[in-house]
Amino acid sequence: MKGTAPAAAPVVPVRGRLRPLGLGDVRITGGFWAERQSVNAEASLAHIEHWLEREGWIRNFDLAANGGDLAGERRGREFSDSEVYKFLEALAWEIGRGGDERLESRFRAVVARVAAAQEPDGYLNTRFGRPGQAPRWSDLEWGHEIYCVGHLLQAAVARARTRPGADDGLLEVARRAADNICDTFGPEGIDGVCGHPGIETALVELARVTEDDRYLAQAALFVDRRGHGRLSDVEYGRDYFQDETPVRQATVLRGHAVRANYLAAGAVDVAVELKDASLLDAVRTQWTNAVTRRTYVTGGQGSRHQDEAFGGDWVLPPDRAYSETCAGIGSVMLAWRLLLADGDSRYADLIERTLFNVVSTSPSADGRSFFYANTLHRRELGTLPDADRPSLRAAASLRAPWFEVSCCPTNVARTLASLTAYVATADDEGLQLHQYVPGSVAHRRADGRELGVTVETDYPRDGEIRVRIDSDDEHPWALSLRVPGWAARGATLTVDGRTRPVAPGTVTERRVWHRGDEVLLSLPMAPRFTYPDPRIDAVRGCVAVERGPVVFALESVDVPGGAAVDELRVDTSQPPRLVDGRVTVRCRHVLPYDHDWPYRADRAQTEPAVGAELDAVPLVEYHAWANRGPSTMRVWLAAR
Amino acid sequence: MKGTAPAAAPVVPVRGRLRPLGLGDVRITGGFWAERQSVNAEASLAHIEHWLEREGWIRNFDLAANGGDLAGERRGREFSDSEVYKFLEALAWEIGRGGDERLESRFRAVVARVAAAQEPDGYLNTRFGRPGQAPRWSDLEWGHEIYCVGHLLQAAVARARTRPGADDGLLEVARRAADNICDTFGPEGIDGVCGHPGIETALVELARVTEDDRYLAQAALFVDRRGHGRLSDVEYGRDYFQDETPVRQATVLRGHAVRANYLAAGAVDVAVELKDASLLDAVRTQWTNAVTRRTYVTGGQGSRHQDEAFGGDWVLPPDRAYSETCAGIGSVMLAWRLLLADGDSRYADLIERTLFNVVSTSPSADGRSFFYANTLHRRELGTLPDADRPSLRAAASLRAPWFEVSCCPTNVARTLASLTAYVATADDEGLQLHQYVPGSVAHRRADGRELGVTVETDYPRDGEIRVRIDSDDEHPWALSLRVPGWAARGATLTVDGRTRPVAPGTVTERRVWHRGDEVLLSLPMAPRFTYPDPRIDAVRGCVAVERGPVVFALESVDVPGGAAVDELRVDTSQPPRLVDGRVTVRCRHVLPYDHDWPYRADRAQTEPAVGAELDAVPLVEYHAWANRGPSTMRVWLAAR
Repeated sequence: MKGTAPAAAPVVPVRGRLRPLGLGDVRITGGFWAERQSVNAEASLAHIEHWLEREGWIRNFDLAANGGDLAGERRGREFSDSEVYKFLEALAWEIGRGGDERLESRFRAVVARVAAAQEPDGYLNTRFGRPGQAPRWSDLEWGHEIYCVGHLLQAAVARARTRPGADDGLLEVARRAADNICDTFGPEGIDGVCGHPGIETALVELARVTEDDRYLAQAALFVDRRGHGRLSDVEYGRDYFQDETPVRQATVLRGHAVRANYLAAGAVDVAVELKDASLLDAVRTQWTNAVTRRTYVTGGQGSRHQDEAFGGDWVLPPDRAYSETCAGIGSVMLAWRLLLADGDSRYADLIERTLFNVVSTSPSADGRSFFYANTLHRRELGTLPDADRPSLRAAASLRAPWFEVSCCPTNVARTLASLTAYVATADDEGLQLHQYVPGSVAHRRADGRELGVTVETDYPRDGEIRVRIDSDDEHPWALSLRVPGWAARGATLTVDGRTRPVAPGTVTERRVWHRGDEVLLSLPMAPRFTYPDPRIDAVRGCVAVERGPVVFALESVDVPGGAAVDELRVDTSQPPRLVDGRVTVRCRHVLPYDHDWPYRADRAQTEPAVGAELDAVPLVEYHAWANRGPSTMRVWLAAR
Repeated sequence: MKGTAPAAAPVVPVRGRLRPLGLGDVRITGGFWAERQSVNAEASLAHIEHWLEREGWIRNFDLAANGGDLAGERRGREFSDSEVYKFLEALAWEIGRGGDERLESRFRAVVARVAAAQEPDGYLNTRFGRPGQAPRWSDLEWGHEIYCVGHLLQAAVARARTRPGADDGLLEVARRAADNICDTFGPEGIDGVCGHPGIETALVELARVTEDDRYLAQAALFVDRRGHGRLSDVEYGRDYFQDETPVRQATVLRGHAVRANYLAAGAVDVAVELKDASLLDAVRTQWTNAVTRRTYVTGGQGSRHQDEAFGGDWVLPPDRAYSETCAGIGSVMLAWRLLLADGDSRYADLIERTLFNVVSTSPSADGRSFFYANTLHRRELGTLPDADRPSLRAAASLRAPWFEVSCCPTNVARTLASLTAYVATADDEGLQLHQYVPGSVAHRRADGRELGVTVETDYPRDGEIRVRIDSDDEHPWALSLRVPGWAARGATLTVDGRTRPVAPGTVTERRVWHRGDEVLLSLPMAPRFTYPDPRIDAVRGCVAVERGPVVFALESVDVPGGAAVDELRVDTSQPPRLVDGRVTVRCRHVLPYDHDWPYRADRAQTEPAVGAELDAVPLVEYHAWANRGPSTMRVWLAAR
């Protein structure tokens, strides 16, 4: 068991309702997420490094370091440096999770190339400031300079938490870059903010690692500066940047969905460190309103392609869903911070939903291609991605190996590599399990008591979650388990041979636990129909199908007789059922008809002809769709 | 009565099922459209000229002519020249409609400034080719150089048809510019096309005016060149430019909705002139598929903000409808050409719908502000447009005085000024009335026979259309009237005191007509519910309300008790009815409720609470909405 050093985890607040448990305390030993972590480590990291080299995004640092013609030869978009940093962060977590020497040497090699490009005053960016390039800080709206530094800091924080005291130099590079930001944008410096948030949470995390409050103060300054129109009024409007309303006054997440979540996450970090209750409360309100009105059933956020943005309340079209992978990751980052602050299981509910239906949807089974946007309805087979060149971010109908804006692959990689840290927490009372994975939690408290459990489960394929106590402790302690919001009916907890119903929320058993004691949480895994709020106009009259936390989809490759997914009507009088291990629904095939105008005064003229009854149409887990060639797909099924 | 000179009309094909009747043959003497033509002439034209001067878009020509620092001082987007040309076209039609000397002198003054900027070889564009500017033709994707010439040609054609032989010089300027295009992009020239179609129809029209087939051949060449990937693959995809599939092979309008309609209109022009039946047939198919699957109930086209483009089939979200005003105008241009070619009343049906619900929706009542996009559902009051500066094209919640991309105001102006030419046609058999306006048609045929009618009607406020014969002719001739597609039940025709039911399509009475004979077409004007094709997912379970060709909307300023438009459910068991002259529907107010997740396994949890019954909620003509301050609005009303 580990000591009481700071957790090897992405977020380590100084206070809060719950304390994170890191990679040293928690193990994921099998099941859904272990598979994905393994693919990430074995395939995705090398795939990402290959494309970073191929596209020249790491070489940009070499050009900068060696006095090359950066202005002429630099490749990639304004933010390509950040992909290199996110790759480093992913490597750092993976090394912390037990990665081998090969990973360590790759990590050090890239760090050395990055470090060599840093200028004497700490400035580090390959896109600005050198001969022939635009001056530093000359394009705060779109330049992403401060944003890139944020990802550099996050990589360094990951490294410092997983390999404290390592001599690779990344933490020093990060500190110098952060100092440069503080020197430049401090109270006496440029009165500006970055068009893309991200620096805020990174600076707070660096402050936590270094115990240097200057970084925290700078993060707080950035949070307070935003929302006063310091950025220009671009075509998408200032809300795209969250710069139209101060963070403390905003009541909902809006604008670019990744930016919105990153900013809110940073605001939580600042609020927690500075005991700023009103700031924290503002973010809670924004989160609640975003989740109740602006979030897809998958947990995805962002319904507008044009500006990758949240739509207005209830504007959640499935066929033009954007639901960017990175927005899902940002949402997990935000919800996790709120969970640590408040302990409310609703945050963990959203994390679970988003992990299973957005984050795990992005990568292909082989970990070598990704969805950037995660639509909930594909009507046409569309254009196939090109295996040999970067795809446009939201154009491909299947997962693509790389994108011109390639934020998602590296974001998925760092999230999967650090996922272990989102499973469990501790507090003075005991341990809390938030996500159910086969594995173990073993935690040594500051008071020296050691608490540990092993979890056996095939969740979410199965609803039995068996928690075995691994520690003997003469004092009572509390084991808390999340009962997911979706498990409103039929969840039970068995302790000491006694089974009782439990309701969504947190169920806590406090007692003197002995090694070998068992707790069994049993969740109702019958597939179910899910009905939308009627204010979501775009899915009126439709149902989704879920099983546990997993959203299902109707994919054309599963439709008997080749009927189009849009031509099936679900019979909601018969619940979805398992047939041969697959979730199925009863459907009617309705036949399209010709007309010369699709709007009729006679309602009967709009009713399609009735075709075959299909008794058991199999659905596919949404995260697994589009792994069998081009297809069409619906999450929301028209009910009959 | 006029002679047999070419009609003073926007489209004068060499052949086709119907022949256009121009401004000299047709008069609109009152009613809905006369009001709008009057506002256009009295207010909009001066408003447009004011903004063109204020923004410097006319001055750009002065800078070019006087050797000014065009590269440094030029203002406006790449296509700002075209707004000056569209303004000239509007002036030309308005002068042709009877405009006064003041209009004539304004027209000549602007023509002189344009002409002065033309280069010796005929090239004319203020954005390219001069010192410090990008070279000519260096950006075919986005430069709009050829597109701008197209609008120059259309202005000259309008002038030549309304003031043949006028000495203002515009036609010569246009010919030189067209010659320059032919020299540059002819069979031996640059093998390219413009990113924005428009030149095709303009060249054919110029060929018709000048009887110079070189322009026709160049138009045909541009049509045939497109669709082979000559333009680069931009983020929106090549279908944005209609450059992914040859015109002859495409089966539906797609990509940027204005570009798509302009290109298709040009293809019809080419096909008609060259007797190219397969090309014409391809466009017919594209039109039919676009109208039956990709068109809003208003006639609006384009459901994507991101690229101002058609969505896929059945993707017609009301709340993210783009329905650009210019796309509606392009659709009228296309349908009119197909109507002339084929004579099918369906084309005139779409023109009517689009004129009443898109083109007339754009301008405010005072003609000094405009909608660029025409949404079918506004959920929030949104940002008000700025009266003192150009608005972003689709950002304002109310009509805006001008836009940074300001294509719509000038397009509306030229359309309203030439609207008279869309009312009636002639063929060897007689006259055809397509749109019903109070006014007259008086046509001298090539064989010397003179046919004339006067129309008395208060349409669309009233369904009685009284056609009185104004001519005496000893030979029989055919009077054809369109029975609109929406008038499926209850339309009657009364001739000689005998009334009979008539069905949608064209009803023709052929006889020896005497002065004073009357025909009465009576259309059923009861307001009605309209139901959408079930494949339009976005409006499942909703109804619209129409009366005659006019679409209605529920606007918040009309809702009793201040309920939100999104909180009303329409009772479809009681048809909409007229109360105090307004169309009303019976609604139930449903009450929103709080929840922490908007997707529920228990359907009852998604049912809103029932509030007050509202017996007669007044609706507003969609084209008249947003004239009473900020409001929310729905065209598609949730049914209960």
